[in-house]
Amino acid sequence: MIDRNVYLDNLKFEDARSLLFETFKTADLTGIEPVAVYESLGRVTAEPVTAVLSSPNHNASAMDGIAVISEETASADDRNHLELKAGSGFKYVDTGDPITEPWNAVIMVEDLLEADDDRVVIKAPARIWQHVRHVGEDIAAGELIIPSFQRVRPVDIGAMAAGGITEIRVFRKPVVAIIPTGTEIIEDPSGMTEGGIIDSNSRMFAAMVRDAGAEPLRLKPVIDDREKIKQAFAGALEKADAVILIAGSSAGTEDYSADTIRSFGELLFHGVAVKPGKPAIFGRAGNKPLIGLPGYPVSGYVIFDRLVKPLIEMMQGIGAGAEEFRNGFLSRRVPSSLEHREFVRVKCGIVGGRMIVSPLSRGAGITMSLVQADGILEIPQESEGYEAGTEVSIRLTRPSSEIGNRLVSIGSHDLLLDVVAELMHRGGQHTGLSSTHQGSMGGVLAIRKGECHIAPVHLLDVKDGRYNEYLFGRYFDSSEFALIKGVGRTQGLIVKPGNPKGISSISDIAADGTVFINRQRGSGTRVLLDYLLQQNEIDPDSVTGYGREMTTHMAVASAVKSGTADTGLGVYSAAAVNGLDFIPVGREDYDFVVRADMLETPALKSFIDCLKSDAFAAELKRLGGYELDAVGKIVRV
Amino acid sequence: MIDRNVYLDNLKFEDARSLLFETFKTADLTGIEPVAVYESLGRVTAEPVTAVLSSPNHNASAMDGIAVISEETASADDRNHLELKAGSGFKYVDTGDPITEPWNAVIMVEDLLEADDDRVVIKAPARIWQHVRHVGEDIAAGELIIPSFQRVRPVDIGAMAAGGITEIRVFRKPVVAIIPTGTEIIEDPSGMTEGGIIDSNSRMFAAMVRDAGAEPLRLKPVIDDREKIKQAFAGALEKADAVILIAGSSAGTEDYSADTIRSFGELLFHGVAVKPGKPAIFGRAGNKPLIGLPGYPVSGYVIFDRLVKPLIEMMQGIGAGAEEFRNGFLSRRVPSSLEHREFVRVKCGIVGGRMIVSPLSRGAGITMSLVQADGILEIPQESEGYEAGTEVSIRLTRPSSEIGNRLVSIGSHDLLLDVVAELMHRGGQHTGLSSTHQGSMGGVLAIRKGECHIAPVHLLDVKDGRYNEYLFGRYFDSSEFALIKGVGRTQGLIVKPGNPKGISSISDIAADGTVFINRQRGSGTRVLLDYLLQQNEIDPDSVTGYGREMTTHMAVASAVKSGTADTGLGVYSAAAVNGLDFIPVGREDYDFVVRADMLETPALKSFIDCLKSDAFAAELKRLGGYELDAVGKIVRV
Repeated sequence: MIDRNVYLDNLKFEDARSLLFETFKTADLTGIEPVAVYESLGRVTAEPVTAVLSSPNHNASAMDGIAVISEETASADDRNHLELKAGSGFKYVDTGDPITEPWNAVIMVEDLLEADDDRVVIKAPARIWQHVRHVGEDIAAGELIIPSFQRVRPVDIGAMAAGGITEIRVFRKPVVAIIPTGTEIIEDPSGMTEGGIIDSNSRMFAAMVRDAGAEPLRLKPVIDDREKIKQAFAGALEKADAVILIAGSSAGTEDYSADTIRSFGELLFHGVAVKPGKPAIFGRAGNKPLIGLPGYPVSGYVIFDRLVKPLIEMMQGIGAGAEEFRNGFLSRRVPSSLEHREFVRVKCGIVGGRMIVSPLSRGAGITMSLVQADGILEIPQESEGYEAGTEVSIRLTRPSSEIGNRLVSIGSHDLLLDVVAELMHRGGQHTGLSSTHQGSMGGVLAIRKGECHIAPVHLLDVKDGRYNEYLFGRYFDSSEFALIKGVGRTQGLIVKPGNPKGISSISDIAADGTVFINRQRGSGTRVLLDYLLQQNEIDPDSVTGYGREMTTHMAVASAVKSGTADTGLGVYSAAAVNGLDFIPVGREDYDFVVRADMLETPALKSFIDCLKSDAFAAELKRLGGYELDAVGKIVRV
Repeated sequence: MIDRNVYLDNLKFEDARSLLFETFKTADLTGIEPVAVYESLGRVTAEPVTAVLSSPNHNASAMDGIAVISEETASADDRNHLELKAGSGFKYVDTGDPITEPWNAVIMVEDLLEADDDRVVIKAPARIWQHVRHVGEDIAAGELIIPSFQRVRPVDIGAMAAGGITEIRVFRKPVVAIIPTGTEIIEDPSGMTEGGIIDSNSRMFAAMVRDAGAEPLRLKPVIDDREKIKQAFAGALEKADAVILIAGSSAGTEDYSADTIRSFGELLFHGVAVKPGKPAIFGRAGNKPLIGLPGYPVSGYVIFDRLVKPLIEMMQGIGAGAEEFRNGFLSRRVPSSLEHREFVRVKCGIVGGRMIVSPLSRGAGITMSLVQADGILEIPQESEGYEAGTEVSIRLTRPSSEIGNRLVSIGSHDLLLDVVAELMHRGGQHTGLSSTHQGSMGGVLAIRKGECHIAPVHLLDVKDGRYNEYLFGRYFDSSEFALIKGVGRTQGLIVKPGNPKGISSISDIAADGTVFINRQRGSGTRVLLDYLLQQNEIDPDSVTGYGREMTTHMAVASAVKSGTADTGLGVYSAAAVNGLDFIPVGREDYDFVVRADMLETPALKSFIDCLKSDAFAAELKRLGGYELDAVGKIVRV
């Protein structure tokens, strides 16, 4: 019989958060340890730090000049200049030099009428203590420098050093053990096997633990064996202040996390109403949090970021770090269920002065959605989502300075976009290119709505077989938009090495036993395919796999490479990069529609410069299948 | 004859910045080195990182359930249930398990009508490839994971690991040498001498270098000797990618920095029109920046923060980090000169929904102004400053979350404020107390203008000798404000141990040969002094030092302790903490005026709880001189 777990709970996110904070609030902190002031950057003070020495610790000259006795300068004025002798009447001092008896005032060097080694002439009296910094002017002995529970910054180190402090007491960094589990989990890419999954999650969580100020203790992956997992857990619990089990938190046959946590402590809850991230487990062993994170990377990330990180910060006695929020406008509708709080990864860009927010893939397994994201949109459980155009608040996961300076591209995908992005990064560090792949028609619609600066397109006019320019007149007004010529590229059928199915033309994709992989509607490649099918009088229903849609050339090539499909339509470079064969079926123009008001901006100029550069030409030659005759030319159609 | 440097330049800040960026823009970067992906957190990529493995690397089940052959499930529907046999007809799979031939679809466990080890019953067909994650769905081999010039984040590490990457090429961390100079500079507080200054600057700059992502190489302090400084500089230049000389950048007799930099390379400029920070020096030796920072801590900080840090970041191939800006309203006028760009340290607090910005001490030697600051207000050279009430943009130097949650206090100073702040920090980490000391009348005016939540006051009604309550009716309306009773405290004359001048009453401060130290106008203590002088018919002009004003009790005590003055009026605790003697002259009420709308807030409740706590009572008993009869009582006057 199948042995299955059940979710104990479906706690609302806010309730889960409160429960965790209540549970661990009164827990003993991780402990206190001494640390040298000079090594204390980023540590959190466990006690207030009070100066033991004053700064300055003596009366000190605040200027370069001479020390004098105030009373003896009283007779000097504009008409009655006064001469002072070195030794008895004055002494040269530099800024910071001690002012000791009998001196009690300083005259700036700029105010001396004459000055040599033996004598000076002054024209005004010196008030008592003028230009003298008195003892403790900056820091008085006994004065509080920083309170407890403060993360030490460079200026704090400076002030503590000046106040004569050499060692302070700080909270010990919590040690957080991380145990990857799963029989299919591979420690290292070099040991990759069929069906293996590289342990990337524990590496990400270890870095997140470090980012949160704690020390990760990462264990090697443990196979799906109840006893082996418990054994690893017991060892980790002994050494660490918190233990995280990765994967096995769901309700499958080999999900031992809940059981393990229960056997070492108290299970607080199993299951939170968030998406992604539902199968999360939290428990406690005494004051130590025990955590089961979902194995899907984005699910694990969300639970770590919103529930584990605040716990780790609390264990160090500090509040949450600074989070940067920005308001922006949704480019697309984002529906969401009332069953959970949803965390949507988004890309952001400033277009026409407004921040445009575009949702990324919502799959829990798509790590790249985290890498590409500029921020997270949280949709509360009570909301059914937002319509396009709604103003929403985004928690940024990248500095806003990076977002503001870059060119936003929405449209058709080509590998050359990565090449341009790289060249723009190298050329000047102040511009960049952020690409979202929504197909050519997606780009046309997005740039019309003011959601991007440029739209890469390759759209065939089925009337005359020409590309892109026909869009002007139909969709675009040349006073507001222009076309930047891109590349000519070869489209063709991507097939396995050696072309085992003997595919030679578009007609062959409908052959029995041949599985095709398609591109999504609205993509230029799909328009081309449908045009070719029509010209060859092939019924789409006769093409096995016509309904299975991928969103990039690379995904099509991957499907062919892995055997999921025999062939698909795509560009030469995608086939070449993957070591696949290629049957050319046509040449097309891949160009860029651009907002005319962008043409004079540094970002777009940099984009065009990169298109025209030798480095770009060389890299596209290496990829193969491109023609660069008119690249970078601005056409007002 | 005196050997003096001259400032070569008085460059505008923007020009200095441009000149530096232009000079070092084309410089070779520090170099490239390999680093393990798992150790790459925070490093900056020198090359784009491209996946070598796909993720998933096999077709994988997206659900817990069974793998089936799609074609063989076609006949199942609601009426015609279909039984499948284990082995030939289905196979149990968990999420992530490989889906290999002959299987080509997955049915979720939730959709099974019956299930045991040998057989399952289904009620619907499985579409081909349903619930199967295909190869490369997340990351396709050959796909760009992150571009060059990107600072590696935890999610990037996860994605690179998943993409089969074990090592990446990153920019080498620049090594920045820091050389403290000055004969008076002491390496360690334990070696403190008369006239010595602890080397706190190099410790602060080392931490700032580390914060900017580079490696500090701090040398021991070098005395003011031209040859010794050059020797140290030569050694540093050999090992480091940039060299910073601290102090000696001014134009005094022993300021060798400019000369040193000139002898090892080219001097770019000496003197920038910023305040504080003017005597800054920048030069180059080949591609290595050579820097002379001013010795005053705040001057050095400003130059480092605004000119050196961007250089260090540029050397690593990255743009400036995220800076958090907030708009707020100035509580006081801030005049500024047209001769320089000024960097004013400010405290911030949210009062009545508006962020109130209060300038701190503008002295270049006041390290504590950096420690206490929440942010920096930059006043451009073209501006003569801002009037009170002006909306200004503040670059925060502390997370905005800390600023939003705390109680803002402006008014009279007492050591007990540090005690309450500490207790509030300990009690709940979500509230804090931010105090600015502007004297009792300063507090009265500030709270009336809505610039703070509470105002600590001790103001004597000279008519009847009573304290504080008379303010209601004269300044406050009890519908908007309330009074929280604080402590009774003893004011008296602070004198040196053993009372060498034999001071026994207020009359003695006018004695010949006795130097007094005063408090600033508007402080409660000053009101009390003037009242006592009047009552004793003492002419203020007869009091030596009457015109010299300090802003805290601790500063008065420091002045007495250091011998700058013989006596001053202050509270018992300040004398006791400094080991000084104390001649009581009277008892006063130190209370808190509070905005009535704050009374029910968590921050103010926490404040009152702390006042009433045993810990507070114990600490005040230790300090001495306080009476706590009514502490924490809310009085609506």
